[in-house]
Amino acid sequence: MRMVDIITKKRDGHELSDKEIEFFVNGYVDGKIPDYQVSALLMAILFKGMSDREIVTLTDLMEHSGDVIDLSSIPGKKVDKHSTGGVGDKTSLALGPMVAACGAVVAKMSGRGLGHTGGTLDKLESIPGMNVFLKEEQFIEILKKNGVAIAGQTGTLVPADKKLYALRDVTGTVESIPLIASSVMSKKLASGSDCILLDVKFGNGAFMKTREDAKKLAKIMCSIGNSLYRDTRAVLTSMEQPLGYAVGNSLEVKEAIDTLHGKGPKDFQDLCYQSGAIMLEQAGIAKNEEEGLKMLHKVVEDGSAFEKLRQMVIAQGGDVSYIDHPEKFEISKNIIEVRASKAGYVRQIEALSIGENAMRLGAGRETFDDVIDMSAGIVLAKKVGDKVNVGDLLCTAYTNKDEYADVIESIKEAFVIVDEYVPYPPTVHDYIH
Amino acid sequence: MRMVDIITKKRDGHELSDKEIEFFVNGYVDGKIPDYQVSALLMAILFKGMSDREIVTLTDLMEHSGDVIDLSSIPGKKVDKHSTGGVGDKTSLALGPMVAACGAVVAKMSGRGLGHTGGTLDKLESIPGMNVFLKEEQFIEILKKNGVAIAGQTGTLVPADKKLYALRDVTGTVESIPLIASSVMSKKLASGSDCILLDVKFGNGAFMKTREDAKKLAKIMCSIGNSLYRDTRAVLTSMEQPLGYAVGNSLEVKEAIDTLHGKGPKDFQDLCYQSGAIMLEQAGIAKNEEEGLKMLHKVVEDGSAFEKLRQMVIAQGGDVSYIDHPEKFEISKNIIEVRASKAGYVRQIEALSIGENAMRLGAGRETFDDVIDMSAGIVLAKKVGDKVNVGDLLCTAYTNKDEYADVIESIKEAFVIVDEYVPYPPTVHDYIH
Repeated sequence: MRMVDIITKKRDGHELSDKEIEFFVNGYVDGKIPDYQVSALLMAILFKGMSDREIVTLTDLMEHSGDVIDLSSIPGKKVDKHSTGGVGDKTSLALGPMVAACGAVVAKMSGRGLGHTGGTLDKLESIPGMNVFLKEEQFIEILKKNGVAIAGQTGTLVPADKKLYALRDVTGTVESIPLIASSVMSKKLASGSDCILLDVKFGNGAFMKTREDAKKLAKIMCSIGNSLYRDTRAVLTSMEQPLGYAVGNSLEVKEAIDTLHGKGPKDFQDLCYQSGAIMLEQAGIAKNEEEGLKMLHKVVEDGSAFEKLRQMVIAQGGDVSYIDHPEKFEISKNIIEVRASKAGYVRQIEALSIGENAMRLGAGRETFDDVIDMSAGIVLAKKVGDKVNVGDLLCTAYTNKDEYADVIESIKEAFVIVDEYVPYPPTVHDYIH
Repeated sequence: MRMVDIITKKRDGHELSDKEIEFFVNGYVDGKIPDYQVSALLMAILFKGMSDREIVTLTDLMEHSGDVIDLSSIPGKKVDKHSTGGVGDKTSLALGPMVAACGAVVAKMSGRGLGHTGGTLDKLESIPGMNVFLKEEQFIEILKKNGVAIAGQTGTLVPADKKLYALRDVTGTVESIPLIASSVMSKKLASGSDCILLDVKFGNGAFMKTREDAKKLAKIMCSIGNSLYRDTRAVLTSMEQPLGYAVGNSLEVKEAIDTLHGKGPKDFQDLCYQSGAIMLEQAGIAKNEEEGLKMLHKVVEDGSAFEKLRQMVIAQGGDVSYIDHPEKFEISKNIIEVRASKAGYVRQIEALSIGENAMRLGAGRETFDDVIDMSAGIVLAKKVGDKVNVGDLLCTAYTNKDEYADVIESIKEAFVIVDEYVPYPPTVHDYIH
């Protein structure tokens, strides 16, 4: 078998056999097939696509290219949740404890943020002492005790995805649905959960710009997961505005705490309840979503969901006094109010712009070497559908940087205010199962 | 400027600016841009094509990526001829001396054969002592004295093409008309001639399978050459059967000698005359093709074309006694006659199969390390359009190998014999100027 023939076959629009996919994935991980042949194949895949069978085979091979986590020693079904990345997406921080408080085991492996999207690990690290690098044994031990843990993926998982993703990033081959689907799913599958709920975002601040593409991606990912014996479902949510109010690391942790106290922003609270209800059904704890919703409301009201977050923080070495007294989180030096100069209704809050501006204020990384300012970010005061008068607060910006005038101007421009009435948008646009 | 943005731009179907093309060609030659980014870009070009302007810019940059040969010290217009590669294509060996005998300067840089197509340098080396590695000064000196020289391209010419071609060969990106055109033309332009005649072949034994693709390639190459101030024209010829009778190195040299004596196969003699007439017009030696044809007939008849070949061989160190007495060329150990088992008319002689079988008999290389048997090959006895009776000689195979039964069977199958009358095909199908 020769790699050049595999490239040519895909280039000409033919399906690759399982053996051919195996040849290139294993050959690449072993260093036998050079980068330049793989990048040519990736570009051919970007143009010609892959069949469902090819995508499942690719994902399966990537999953097993390194270690896979074995969670079978933990009783019950383990559930995982994954978002394709958005602005202000602190879902795992509130949803994980809620679902665990209902009795499910939430084994969540997360990533860091880059560019305009934040990362769950960075947000967690804004809690002093919090350790997100758990060994597999620690991860399992905490899960057995508390039912919830959030940790970074260990280095020995899915080496094929790591190598392929790094190559895609510099060769213009990121934007391929089969490659995105196999990358996400190989990581989720290697993380060992039995059930996976995907939150596939679309719109301005998301990776998928259109609802159609997001749905296509969601369907393929569900099909991969189900083909490989995991109950995999997806919700489609909009990124036409940031999720909730807060964008920025400790700002988002505080909002997650509020949400666990039942005082979160409406759209974010909704997303946690609706996603959590599905996860409880997947885990076999609720017999349907309705029952799941009731359970979730109960654990928020009686404080047990919040208590789960406390347990999680303690188990991972974090200083729980910050959870109990969020006012302890450092506040940034400069606090800038952004006010409306036009009256009307908010039609859009460009999530991409808000994410990028939060990054410029210090909340994110432009490159992997950048250091994050945990207190920096943006807290919205208005959301899509809200009525605005001239002079109303649109949002507040937090930064320790001293030059921010351009950023503030750009943040203001992210608010699209129109004369016509704008209804509140739905939180979950579609549910694929 | 970032290479990944250039890849993405081409992938999305946009035209690259001259600066962007310069960035990637020069960056690649300098080793600043890695293979894996270039191969991804090449695949994107294969799918999305290039505009005429992009192709001209690419070719110009490739031409000037290394040394260019300066032939300006030689008086008159220098003419070059290039074939896209075929089976039995010994054109340069006869055409070069013919055109030079009429007073034109034929400065020809050639390549080696690989796979089913032969290379002019290999054919020349079947003449004992013949040196095809001329230094630029030697090349120019011989041209000044004799008006004709055929040499291998020196290592310092078109490094960008060498690097890109090697990469294309292993990444499934050879079959792109813009990339083929810029590769061929950058070499021709760097070789320093004022006029270029391209022989673009199509059909079974050629790189371009259809006449349409060949025409497209020919037009683009002419447009590149003319945009860069060289009189560039092209003839379209068929590779549905080998050119002439002989396929194999010394066998083809003998056929070229016959042709210079006016005793060559009809199709080959035709191609030399028709191509030569165009070259003489390009060089400004004949005022039109008709006059060029007359001049060519004359130099063949009076022996001056043959004398030019003798001069060329002597100048490049070859043993001219082989040219005067072609019977001196070694004859291979095994001579196998292939005879018809069916009567009718020859409709096709699959050139690809004849080329590959000649290679198997020892006449060519499967990899660059293979050593060629100069005496091996195939000499046709019938051509397309010929009437055949059962038992008639179709061709003779020459080899020093002892196992050849399969090859002979395969050679026989290359002859497509039908009941209906088949007319003789034209030699030149189209002329682009």
